[in-house]
Amino acid sequence: MAPPPSMAVSPLVALIVRIVTFGGLLISVIVLATTTGFNESYAFRYMLASGVIGMAYTILQTALTLFYLSTGNRLGGDGFAFLDFFGDKVISYMLATGAAAGFGLSVDLARLLQAQGNFNSTAESFLQKANVSASLLFIGFLFSAISSVFSSLSLPKRVD
Amino acid sequence: MAPPPSMAVSPLVALIVRIVTFGGLLISVIVLATTTGFNESYAFRYMLASGVIGMAYTILQTALTLFYLSTGNRLGGDGFAFLDFFGDKVISYMLATGAAAGFGLSVDLARLLQAQGNFNSTAESFLQKANVSASLLFIGFLFSAISSVFSSLSLPKRVD
Repeated sequence: MAPPPSMAVSPLVALIVRIVTFGGLLISVIVLATTTGFNESYAFRYMLASGVIGMAYTILQTALTLFYLSTGNRLGGDGFAFLDFFGDKVISYMLATGAAAGFGLSVDLARLLQAQGNFNSTAESFLQKANVSASLLFIGFLFSAISSVFSSLSLPKRVD
Repeated sequence: MAPPPSMAVSPLVALIVRIVTFGGLLISVIVLATTTGFNESYAFRYMLASGVIGMAYTILQTALTLFYLSTGNRLGGDGFAFLDFFGDKVISYMLATGAAAGFGLSVDLARLLQAQGNFNSTAESFLQKANVSASLLFIGFLFSAISSVFSSLSLPKRVD
């Protein structure tokens, strides 16, 4: 096991950012999964999938950070530096596109249904829940983007 | 002016990636802007805006890379290292969300109009053009993400 490398960012801060990310994604997934009819739309299905995959990845990273915090060693030494770097990038892009696909559909769908005179209370409640879920996914994305900045900054200190 | 720093990636490769990004965005913007009725949708308007802002940023970065290639010096020395790093991140997230918002709307809108029996040839042609534009924006995003990897990797060599 290599000695603990210096990090650009305190592991405690990194851990808090991961926990906030996870919280946003968890509530987003719960809200969307309990919204009747969401799975009739590809955009909302993709939104749910991105939230679930993001949660799995964030749990893994939280566990790795907890291990580092408690033992002072990184699991896998510095071999995971590129995994963190590319993983954070890919996951944050996925969450960004998940939230954007959801908003892209829900905003214009509300307007279209209003124009057609089909904007009843069922549609309103459905789209409200979809918007809440997309907003929480977007918050999860913002914090995953912060993690991505951290892993980019700490990469050179771990691979040099 | 500081001496030319070592870069993780050849400036010629960086330049080619910028040019491909710009090409994708340019055609995406042209296709969408010439599609009658795109501006009735918030998703497609955001898509156009992200393409235009992405083009402006990519032109700036192309010019800076050309200056570096021809003189061996970076304009502004290494003071622009963090501008590249954060600029590439922000712009690539913007392009990803632009393409995702467009696809999120166009895919489900086609299905909704089909279900309603309103999927006539005008709607089909409109959504086809929107999909072509979103696909090209997505290609622009992929290459901007490559630029973001490059600027992340070269950051430490420029700010140490």
